[in-house]
Amino acid sequence: MPDPYLHPPVAAVRDAVARALAEDLTPLGDLSAALVPDSVTATAHVVARAPGVLAGAACATEAFAQVDGRLVVHWRADDGDVLAAGRVLATVTGPLAPMLTAERTALNFLGHLSGIATRVAEFVAAAGDGGARIWDTRKTTPGLRALEKAAVRAGGARNHRGNLSDWVMLKDNHLMGLGITEGVTRAKDRWPGRTVHVEADRFDQVLEAVAAGADAILLDNMSPAEVRRCVEAVHVACGTGRRPLLEISGGVTLATVAEYARTGADMISSGSLTNSAPVLDIGLDIEADR
Amino acid sequence: MPDPYLHPPVAAVRDAVARALAEDLTPLGDLSAALVPDSVTATAHVVARAPGVLAGAACATEAFAQVDGRLVVHWRADDGDVLAAGRVLATVTGPLAPMLTAERTALNFLGHLSGIATRVAEFVAAAGDGGARIWDTRKTTPGLRALEKAAVRAGGARNHRGNLSDWVMLKDNHLMGLGITEGVTRAKDRWPGRTVHVEADRFDQVLEAVAAGADAILLDNMSPAEVRRCVEAVHVACGTGRRPLLEISGGVTLATVAEYARTGADMISSGSLTNSAPVLDIGLDIEADR
Amino acid sequence: MPDPYLHPPVAAVRDAVARALAEDLTPLGDLSAALVPDSVTATAHVVARAPGVLAGAACATEAFAQVDGRLVVHWRADDGDVLAAGRVLATVTGPLAPMLTAERTALNFLGHLSGIATRVAEFVAAAGDGGARIWDTRKTTPGLRALEKAAVRAGGARNHRGNLSDWVMLKDNHLMGLGITEGVTRAKDRWPGRTVHVEADRFDQVLEAVAAGADAILLDNMSPAEVRRCVEAVHVACGTGRRPLLEISGGVTLATVAEYARTGADMISSGSLTNSAPVLDIGLDIEADR
Amino acid sequence: MPDPYLHPPVAAVRDAVARALAEDLTPLGDLSAALVPDSVTATAHVVARAPGVLAGAACATEAFAQVDGRLVVHWRADDGDVLAAGRVLATVTGPLAPMLTAERTALNFLGHLSGIATRVAEFVAAAGDGGARIWDTRKTTPGLRALEKAAVRAGGARNHRGNLSDWVMLKDNHLMGLGITEGVTRAKDRWPGRTVHVEADRFDQVLEAVAAGADAILLDNMSPAEVRRCVEAVHVACGTGRRPLLEISGGVTLATVAEYARTGADMISSGSLTNSAPVLDIGLDIEADR
Amino acid sequence: MPDPYLHPPVAAVRDAVARALAEDLTPLGDLSAALVPDSVTATAHVVARAPGVLAGAACATEAFAQVDGRLVVHWRADDGDVLAAGRVLATVTGPLAPMLTAERTALNFLGHLSGIATRVAEFVAAAGDGGARIWDTRKTTPGLRALEKAAVRAGGARNHRGNLSDWVMLKDNHLMGLGITEGVTRAKDRWPGRTVHVEADRFDQVLEAVAAGADAILLDNMSPAEVRRCVEAVHVACGTGRRPLLEISGGVTLATVAEYARTGADMISSGSLTNSAPVLDIGLDIEADR
Amino acid sequence: MPDPYLHPPVAAVRDAVARALAEDLTPLGDLSAALVPDSVTATAHVVARAPGVLAGAACATEAFAQVDGRLVVHWRADDGDVLAAGRVLATVTGPLAPMLTAERTALNFLGHLSGIATRVAEFVAAAGDGGARIWDTRKTTPGLRALEKAAVRAGGARNHRGNLSDWVMLKDNHLMGLGITEGVTRAKDRWPGRTVHVEADRFDQVLEAVAAGADAILLDNMSPAEVRRCVEAVHVACGTGRRPLLEISGGVTLATVAEYARTGADMISSGSLTNSAPVLDIGLDIEADR
Repeated sequence: MPDPYLHPPVAAVRDAVARALAEDLTPLGDLSAALVPDSVTATAHVVARAPGVLAGAACATEAFAQVDGRLVVHWRADDGDVLAAGRVLATVTGPLAPMLTAERTALNFLGHLSGIATRVAEFVAAAGDGGARIWDTRKTTPGLRALEKAAVRAGGARNHRGNLSDWVMLKDNHLMGLGITEGVTRAKDRWPGRTVHVEADRFDQVLEAVAAGADAILLDNMSPAEVRRCVEAVHVACGTGRRPLLEISGGVTLATVAEYARTGADMISSGSLTNSAPVLDIGLDIEADR
Repeated sequence: MPDPYLHPPVAAVRDAVARALAEDLTPLGDLSAALVPDSVTATAHVVARAPGVLAGAACATEAFAQVDGRLVVHWRADDGDVLAAGRVLATVTGPLAPMLTAERTALNFLGHLSGIATRVAEFVAAAGDGGARIWDTRKTTPGLRALEKAAVRAGGARNHRGNLSDWVMLKDNHLMGLGITEGVTRAKDRWPGRTVHVEADRFDQVLEAVAAGADAILLDNMSPAEVRRCVEAVHVACGTGRRPLLEISGGVTLATVAEYARTGADMISSGSLTNSAPVLDIGLDIEADR
Repeated sequence: MPDPYLHPPVAAVRDAVARALAEDLTPLGDLSAALVPDSVTATAHVVARAPGVLAGAACATEAFAQVDGRLVVHWRADDGDVLAAGRVLATVTGPLAPMLTAERTALNFLGHLSGIATRVAEFVAAAGDGGARIWDTRKTTPGLRALEKAAVRAGGARNHRGNLSDWVMLKDNHLMGLGITEGVTRAKDRWPGRTVHVEADRFDQVLEAVAAGADAILLDNMSPAEVRRCVEAVHVACGTGRRPLLEISGGVTLATVAEYARTGADMISSGSLTNSAPVLDIGLDIEADR
Repeated sequence: MPDPYLHPPVAAVRDAVARALAEDLTPLGDLSAALVPDSVTATAHVVARAPGVLAGAACATEAFAQVDGRLVVHWRADDGDVLAAGRVLATVTGPLAPMLTAERTALNFLGHLSGIATRVAEFVAAAGDGGARIWDTRKTTPGLRALEKAAVRAGGARNHRGNLSDWVMLKDNHLMGLGITEGVTRAKDRWPGRTVHVEADRFDQVLEAVAAGADAILLDNMSPAEVRRCVEAVHVACGTGRRPLLEISGGVTLATVAEYARTGADMISSGSLTNSAPVLDIGLDIEADR
Repeated sequence: MPDPYLHPPVAAVRDAVARALAEDLTPLGDLSAALVPDSVTATAHVVARAPGVLAGAACATEAFAQVDGRLVVHWRADDGDVLAAGRVLATVTGPLAPMLTAERTALNFLGHLSGIATRVAEFVAAAGDGGARIWDTRKTTPGLRALEKAAVRAGGARNHRGNLSDWVMLKDNHLMGLGITEGVTRAKDRWPGRTVHVEADRFDQVLEAVAAGADAILLDNMSPAEVRRCVEAVHVACGTGRRPLLEISGGVTLATVAEYARTGADMISSGSLTNSAPVLDIGLDIEADR
Repeated sequence: MPDPYLHPPVAAVRDAVARALAEDLTPLGDLSAALVPDSVTATAHVVARAPGVLAGAACATEAFAQVDGRLVVHWRADDGDVLAAGRVLATVTGPLAPMLTAERTALNFLGHLSGIATRVAEFVAAAGDGGARIWDTRKTTPGLRALEKAAVRAGGARNHRGNLSDWVMLKDNHLMGLGITEGVTRAKDRWPGRTVHVEADRFDQVLEAVAAGADAILLDNMSPAEVRRCVEAVHVACGTGRRPLLEISGGVTLATVAEYARTGADMISSGSLTNSAPVLDIGLDIEADR
């Protein structure tokens, strides 16, 4: 049974696949598949051509199903699985013509989303256990937010806010003429119950945010040493009570993530997880039935 | 006046932006912007933080316009322009709150599409002048085909077929039980006037495709030497008459593209242009008016 | 300048109005307006026929604009304003025929959303100052979530979570086989940074939720005395540190809200604000120009 | 087999449910359900917590089905059924996580539409047998016209025109500079075969409308005595021939409807049936399977 | 000022044009226009190449506007105008490239809808004055109902019901097991106020429909003599009271319509008006500005 | 198994049917079917009432399925089949009420698309074997491009370009200030691999287009003799090499097509195939089950 934590919402999958097929098939459909004799059926294997982490299985299934309900996809792996190169992920059976029509759309989803999951998993592994965890951002590909955020979960990281509507995040531009204290107070008044997250560039801003009651603080572009200083100050300020979540953001790379992860901060976020991951090479090996 | 060759269709821009804003603002809108006093206006500069090639200007304009019609965007650069780091690309003026709401969506489009244009321009430069030109593929991000294909043009490469519906492409799987000669004949019969493109893995297949009358031939995963052998054979076969377009495809990289470009083939295609380009770092510097 | 805190997102307004007009005008348009001579213009006043609180102004403006761009709406009131019966809220000028076509759609939005704002304002007033504040719920009319939640803000109450995707809420059914402590731990692990809200039916559950680190606790169907007991216990448990937000839910009415508001809890939620508010009577007085 | 008279069109149900789920699940889906172990299944009962009339069964079924095709809904009641408090209306079985995801959407439809059907049934009962029948209006919740009009039928009343496009209704504003006689003539000329309905505020207008050949006349804001006077006059004027349908409109309440129903008029309409009905309390009792 | 009786609803125009452009421009836009230098502007004349009646002007305007807001269309004719061959209907000015892109879409609407209006006008003229008027049917091109019904009005005929939802029409299949009398009674009971229309194949059915109180009767596939017999019988049956509208349907052609129009029936309907009208030849003459 | 060459893309069918049903059923559904007792089931036969060629079978199936999933359609013919008058094409079984609701929509698709296929087949037959083949154009009914182009294939002709995005076509207006040679060169440079098609009005333009390397040439409004002269010149110019496809366009009719087909040109195109074909009369014979 599919784990709802690792998969995107069904409607997001259905709509994204319908749009992708529309852009690939308008106006006349698949000219090449129209040359394939109707009676030819085939068996195809979805194969990882490089090691990585799977994401997007539901999108691939949906692509085949939307093109032709007679195509049957049997999965041997699921989102979140670590893949060795050469692993057969799924088998598709049915008429050859629609299988060819759906192929590229299914693979575009699988490659793109598994590419993100794979990049995420590398980051998570580089950060190591027991320290800060990895967070994504809103720097996602336009129109694919739900799918990419699910791929992040499949890769083992966590989702930052989903959009502008789920929690309050106060960056310097929001605070023009307000100041952190007034900004947090206003946010707590207008949106009670919601996470109020404050971006801090400097040590004193961190202290002000803690005092103002922020639920989370983004430590922007700080060195590991600066982060550590902030972490300690926050611990002192909060004593045995709850303390705000501390997020490291800004230029963290695979090379530096381990050091940052050991600073005592809670989360490390990176836009590159979703906006710069190369595709994972996943292909379809088709053989005609006889 | 915008060059229609470099820009995507207006409707594709409008729909992609509407979807992106919907996923960022459902259900309650921008909680944080709702804390900004109504009277605050600002001036913002869209700035390239790294060198590259611009694409997606129309998407950014549309994002600001859809959020609030009072936001005015004045561009100082256009799609296809080569950007130095630090260059101011555009100025946005108007009320601060909606400017903040549209910021991330506008930047996500600019970063993603300029990232593609930048990667494309690197490939084009590496290929050098006078040899084969660069082609994209259908390996695009689902839902963004029209925008990414325009970014490819902005980067200086050319568009391969737009989708399954614009020309015929016969890969080995289409030819199961048909053979190249019969496949091309059938394609020319069913779809007269259209490009018929044949994938060839071997030298003899290239010759068969030429004889069958293919308009273009994809040389799949061949070494530069193999490509050269095919080019020469095609020239011989066609004499002074027209000859099919020859495409090199399969694993060409920035490191190898120059050598391939000098083989005498016409086009070199790479899926990585659209499915693996990292984002170009473009940001928004906002200052409140006073 | 419109306050973004009180208004719904622009796209939500545009889409809801387009759907409403489509259901009123398919397939032939307005048969009756087609009898009105083209040359007749008119001036109309949007008038509150009963006292209340305004919400939905943007929807009314959009309805007139979508039917005919020549209709001009000039508002003399804005969402959130308290209205006396008879107050003129806006003036509409332009050709009579499309004015009649848009009338009912504009009024349906105004009446429905102002009805909610008015009911909310009554609840807020009944609760009195200084005690618990009023919260809405997800018990909204299907398809109108964004608009109704904005009407709640216009009425002076606050928005609970916007949907299933913005914070975690653990009801008894989510905790089957998990228990509160494990549920909160799992929620904090999977969704760090987000509000974790726990429903508690009993005193001991409240204590368990506090100990588990819940950010908010729903006190379900408790008497004012039971609420007070919980409030005190939470204060003791948390000492000078932060304490979770306490929400009263279940059967609170206009008659009982004041007593609940003085219990020391933070929020009182009621589904009836959005799913059972009668319409506010707002009409359009039209006079033909001569 | 479902009675097509009592149910809304299938497409209206499907689209309304898809929109409702989208606003509840964008962008990340159900965060809370993602904590529920995949293997937990449950059985749930849809229960009326108050007496009333059922409407919206198809919407609830659709909500569960759209979230997860494995959820099975078995109905023991249908739209139009009179419900006692405590009655089990349906049983839902299947995986727990998606059941929780669909719960609120399903109940929002059931509560809202059954609330309308219940209010309608009260009006119908108050009007009594043998006199005027109850009619709805176009004062419906934007976007839910088809569903609410079906709920009106389920409650035992009749549907007035569905929208501006199905029959002609001439109010004073349509007749500016035309007059009733010319208005009806023009309507009959331009839209032959359609109901031409005239709003009349005064006795003489009723007579003019009859003479002009109106198919229906709305008696606006008249007392029962005034209505009776009009009814009699219309009977005299029409003799043994057909006479127009007479509608009473304006401020009729549960308290006054019986007296109006005995005036001899045909229909009594009230906007409050659809725009001011409180929700019917319908809940879901879930038990985990073991 | 445009006559709302002759034009389709604005939203129907906007949506139909958007769909038409999407199917003509997906995925890459207009490849040919992308070769036109940006600086070339042009002036174009929309010209009737054959005599006819204009319909669809708003669609053409919308097509140019959606492609590029800089294109300006100035109309010298309006829907419903009788056109001589060679008449200039409108002038379009602006940049050449988008003008070429919109050309075919604009002309496809104009040609199709004016073709219908022209065919309708021929039927109306052939029927002559003073006798039965011409009615359309629901035999419209899928997706273009609103536009084609407006074209029918522009051509001088009237609209029969717009769809299945605006009046009741009882054909033999609806009456299986019911009979005309019971069918009409049931229709009047369930849908009071609406036109109840009965299809009659035989003289006795006409009499039964009149007695049952039908508002309109379709005389199906009768000869002129049979129609006359029915007309007379209906007049006798109704005396000085109102009588149902009588519609002639089935195989009426341009050659026979005059005779049928003089039978005393009210309406003559023909599906061929909307489903078999050839296009009216309307072209665009473009000249580059210099 | 359905031949993908003859059928339209599945998504195009689904969307077109949904739109057609929406315009026929908004807002209240089928008033007449709501009078049919729930228990009545029926068997219906789709029957060709005139000879022709079938197209649109998938649309009819989809219409019945979208209205009610219990309706079962069994086809005895498929798109492309030549039909004798009276032939039973399909049988529909299931509940009567939804069968009646879907009837007109199903028949509107069948009639319109089979009308096109029939007209096309007449043209193909008139052209005779061995000469030029028949091509459609972009003169299709707005919104139905994919379906009508499939109907053209079912009728035995071929599809010209599908839209503005699949190949380059240079008409005189595109060449303003460019000239044929420069236009073709630019097209080959910007859009390598694609068909470049040039419209030629005069003999010298044909020669220039050949020399420029055009892939296809449209001979506009030429007499058969002029066409022959062009054909010969092109043969001479190209020798044994490939030569461009030659298209005859402009005013070819059923009467003249045979003569044109023997000129040696490759294709004859006509907009009238798709924009002026009368409907093929296809009906539904329904019998109630007992």
